[in-house]
Amino acid sequence: MTHCGRKPDHDPQKHNLITLIPVSVGPTINNISVHPDRPEPLDLHLGMFLPTLLNQATPEQMDHFFMPSWNLEIIGTYAQTEIGHGTHLRGLETTATYDPATQEFVLNSPTVSSIKWWPGGLGKTSNHAIVLAQLHTLGNCHGLHAFIVPIRDMSTHEPLPGIVVGDIGPKFGFSEVDNGFLKLENVRLPRENMLMKYAKVEPDGTYVKPPSEKLTYGTMVFIRSMIVGQSAQALSKSCTIAIRYSAVRHQSELRPGEPEPQILDYQTQQYKLFPLLATAYAFIFVGQYMRKTYHRITGDINQGDFSELPELHALSAGLKAFTTWAANSGIEVCRMSCGGHGYSRSSALPDIYVNFTPACTYEGENTVMMLQTARYLVKSYQRAKNGQQLSGSVSYLNEAEHQRLQPQPVAARPTVVDINDLASLVEGYKLRAATLVQIAAKSIQQELQHRKNQEDAWNNSAIDLVRASDAHCHYVVVKLFTDKLGEIGDTAIHSVLSTLALLYALHGITQNSGDFLQAGLLSVPQMMLISARIKELLSQLRPNAVALVDAFDIRDKKLNSVLGRYDGNVYEHLFEWARRSPLNSTEVHESFHKYLKPLRAKL
Amino acid sequence: MTHCGRKPDHDPQKHNLITLIPVSVGPTINNISVHPDRPEPLDLHLGMFLPTLLNQATPEQMDHFFMPSWNLEIIGTYAQTEIGHGTHLRGLETTATYDPATQEFVLNSPTVSSIKWWPGGLGKTSNHAIVLAQLHTLGNCHGLHAFIVPIRDMSTHEPLPGIVVGDIGPKFGFSEVDNGFLKLENVRLPRENMLMKYAKVEPDGTYVKPPSEKLTYGTMVFIRSMIVGQSAQALSKSCTIAIRYSAVRHQSELRPGEPEPQILDYQTQQYKLFPLLATAYAFIFVGQYMRKTYHRITGDINQGDFSELPELHALSAGLKAFTTWAANSGIEVCRMSCGGHGYSRSSALPDIYVNFTPACTYEGENTVMMLQTARYLVKSYQRAKNGQQLSGSVSYLNEAEHQRLQPQPVAARPTVVDINDLASLVEGYKLRAATLVQIAAKSIQQELQHRKNQEDAWNNSAIDLVRASDAHCHYVVVKLFTDKLGEIGDTAIHSVLSTLALLYALHGITQNSGDFLQAGLLSVPQMMLISARIKELLSQLRPNAVALVDAFDIRDKKLNSVLGRYDGNVYEHLFEWARRSPLNSTEVHESFHKYLKPLRAKL
Repeated sequence: MTHCGRKPDHDPQKHNLITLIPVSVGPTINNISVHPDRPEPLDLHLGMFLPTLLNQATPEQMDHFFMPSWNLEIIGTYAQTEIGHGTHLRGLETTATYDPATQEFVLNSPTVSSIKWWPGGLGKTSNHAIVLAQLHTLGNCHGLHAFIVPIRDMSTHEPLPGIVVGDIGPKFGFSEVDNGFLKLENVRLPRENMLMKYAKVEPDGTYVKPPSEKLTYGTMVFIRSMIVGQSAQALSKSCTIAIRYSAVRHQSELRPGEPEPQILDYQTQQYKLFPLLATAYAFIFVGQYMRKTYHRITGDINQGDFSELPELHALSAGLKAFTTWAANSGIEVCRMSCGGHGYSRSSALPDIYVNFTPACTYEGENTVMMLQTARYLVKSYQRAKNGQQLSGSVSYLNEAEHQRLQPQPVAARPTVVDINDLASLVEGYKLRAATLVQIAAKSIQQELQHRKNQEDAWNNSAIDLVRASDAHCHYVVVKLFTDKLGEIGDTAIHSVLSTLALLYALHGITQNSGDFLQAGLLSVPQMMLISARIKELLSQLRPNAVALVDAFDIRDKKLNSVLGRYDGNVYEHLFEWARRSPLNSTEVHESFHKYLKPLRAKL
Repeated sequence: MTHCGRKPDHDPQKHNLITLIPVSVGPTINNISVHPDRPEPLDLHLGMFLPTLLNQATPEQMDHFFMPSWNLEIIGTYAQTEIGHGTHLRGLETTATYDPATQEFVLNSPTVSSIKWWPGGLGKTSNHAIVLAQLHTLGNCHGLHAFIVPIRDMSTHEPLPGIVVGDIGPKFGFSEVDNGFLKLENVRLPRENMLMKYAKVEPDGTYVKPPSEKLTYGTMVFIRSMIVGQSAQALSKSCTIAIRYSAVRHQSELRPGEPEPQILDYQTQQYKLFPLLATAYAFIFVGQYMRKTYHRITGDINQGDFSELPELHALSAGLKAFTTWAANSGIEVCRMSCGGHGYSRSSALPDIYVNFTPACTYEGENTVMMLQTARYLVKSYQRAKNGQQLSGSVSYLNEAEHQRLQPQPVAARPTVVDINDLASLVEGYKLRAATLVQIAAKSIQQELQHRKNQEDAWNNSAIDLVRASDAHCHYVVVKLFTDKLGEIGDTAIHSVLSTLALLYALHGITQNSGDFLQAGLLSVPQMMLISARIKELLSQLRPNAVALVDAFDIRDKKLNSVLGRYDGNVYEHLFEWARRSPLNSTEVHESFHKYLKPLRAKL
């Protein structure tokens, strides 16, 4: 009995999809780096330093800095986070004090906690950094502004006077990148090194405000929208590996005397992987929607119309958190579903995880993001209560019926959801979100009655607020997935994607069944039916599962996973991969001569 | 404003616990290795090779092998898992065929999938391995048996003829360990190299069965019980780091104009960490209980009484899975609650995670473990239905009232749980488990009616079965935590541990609120009260939180975490740690001369 060379189910005979679905997830990644998907020391030069110049430099600064940066004479990074300050930007301590006598800025790291920390490429690679610092001029502080700071000599690469710079040491992942620290000790910069496209400091020290505070808003929204796409990307890769491998791996007996089945035939394996497959598809569509919306609104912003920005800002914050958390735990479920081999770096899953997981923290820590969205939801709720008409994703807060939604005995209210109808499920998710926004808003109200302090009331309602944001984002995702189905003409593809969308929606309900029961949106017998329906959907998806990951169209070279190989020849290549392990370069490792032999001699 | 040197709240003034609780978690770890807590190449020699000799070698074999092994002349490992076979032992393919002519066994790896894979220390360190192989003699296969196989020359350390051995390559963690592969090609062993304390092969090839199959059972139970303790250990360390750091880290504003608060003052941070703190305490007590029970039952087993073994076997399987899954995700919550710095290896959290996470897979993959427990639960349910009296943790299946439990409209049944009374909550968890065992058993029944095939019925009920096991384990944990309170005399300690136990129980209910609502155990208004009560408990625990992790008594040296330092001087030491990064050994890294300079020259 051989277990090798069994291929995953690419065979069209095994699935009922004649045409593979052409869902390339390629465009979701940031393609500006040299090797997309792999962190590199030059990432921040390409992804942050150059774009910041483009967005915030004056024409004179562009003339001076852009071409040398483009030619890699100047290699830059973006230094914002400090050792003691991350998400809360106002807390940053680095100072840039203008000296009108010499027309220079004097930059300082006044405390240990103010040392710049984390920027990629800062430790060893960059010779310049865009440094965010509190601008002081003529005795006033004007908040954070960006400065171009030379940190290493252009020819010797030695740190310049007043600069203490280095690598911050080993991390969970990103070992290819020299994330760095930067301590500034009375570093003097010419006035021209402050990025002055918007805010300015005149030669005499006069501060000129930027025309709008909202301009920097856009970049944040853009990056967070991109991260939604990266969540889709990371989860698609992980599902591709785990599902293909589960069609190759055989284990145990299902029926006595029969050969060991593919582990993908186990209901528990399907229950781990297929909801994640559905999630990956959902997030691809959400990512596409966010990019489209961003570009649409950017047009408006350029014409001075900021009206949709708060909505997009709230949505991008919440969805950034919602999708990165789901992808983060999903990658690990995929890894562990591959058993021991998932733990080997040959599977690629450990690397996918360690390189993706920072997305839960960077560009806005996820819980903080959820609370930002919650602030928008609660504000919108108050507006709706005051009779204002809302638009966009929160318009449901206007709908009269939710005003009557009250947590009450489940059986006392007629249920509203048809569990086989996606449109009805979207409605259910919407009403759940409305209920939870209301609960959070009421919690704040109650706290205010007890304590009369807005900030404490907010903090004492934070659990409810995060829950409301989560429900809102969940609603948006289910809705966008459902909307997407309307765009698909091919019957076979429409059918299998509808199955995925239904699985996504129903699985989400079982994971949050208390909410739906509490809000009276579903009855107890319906919950039982949903469990049964999910099992049916898993069986329906089984024959299409491998085709559905093939449709992500991630080539072997990019997937870089022995377990996820398209040809399914896992064990031979695992053996081959292992033989190339650095430890195998000699038959007898030096540790034998250095340690084991001397140790024996002593015993 | 400096943010450095703020110490965590060790100050007894800040908490109302006069005495720190002396809960040392030390004894829960396997102390046989040289450096407890850190994986090492000799771990399997000490933890598996020597103990297996002690348990399964004959006196003659002991004379021959034990002292050389004790003196590290023989360095051994334990080779069971194969590249294509893990949890399903019967599927292992390595063969040992007895040749009566020469009185030797001939060992072979007949396929690629049969290559031994994963054993620690196998790749480069060991010169012997205990190999598990299918024993063939006189034309019959007698299943798995253990053989002592020399794999490297005792003086040159070169692989012996017929042996292909090496390292399996880089992994997620365990980089200190040379996990290895072993391919056997007609390797001949003297008859005396089969471990023959129980089963035997006579010189003429006659096979002699072992006296009891259940003897190997005990070791498995022992190891799984130990893993429960390791879950407690890993989670205690993670909570110590995250909670101390959350008392050091300051961020944002709670009240305008006031200094940045400790992040532990945020409700969301408390909601992430305090339930995990409660879980760590719960698992410590469960680990203690499992060890005690194991040792009690071992006495019985040695006297030939195996009656309690199935119960302990089922319990250890389920609790191994339940606790490792919870600890696994909990470590990551702790890491991410430390923001960016959690991602630095200086926090120790990445290492805790990568070294702990294999526990979800090894010694019985978690889903398989849950299904083993489920098998026992369903069997017990059938017995109870047939009127048999059950004992031990499943005795609740006997209780008459559960026979009437049926999922039904929530409001239609009087609720039974008092949310402020731990004993009543234990009762609630018990009834939830009873309901879910019943649902799983009924699912199997229904499937049988449709398909009449036991195996398919089982597989098609697997989701329900895992859910039932999970609920059973959850009940056992809540019950053991509650029982433990009865042993605590000190009023202050009793009080704070009761708060933790209540938080553990109520938080578990909110995470599974659908189950409790569906089973009619709690009403919708009670669910609202529970949410409010949890917020109160978080506030109550806040002043004691640091004292509660200090009570784990994990010294700085063992914790090995800059973020979790007892003295709280995090930022200074983070800076110091970073400066020692290997990349900082030169000011200008060689990559500048090797890559950047030549690259520039080309542009």
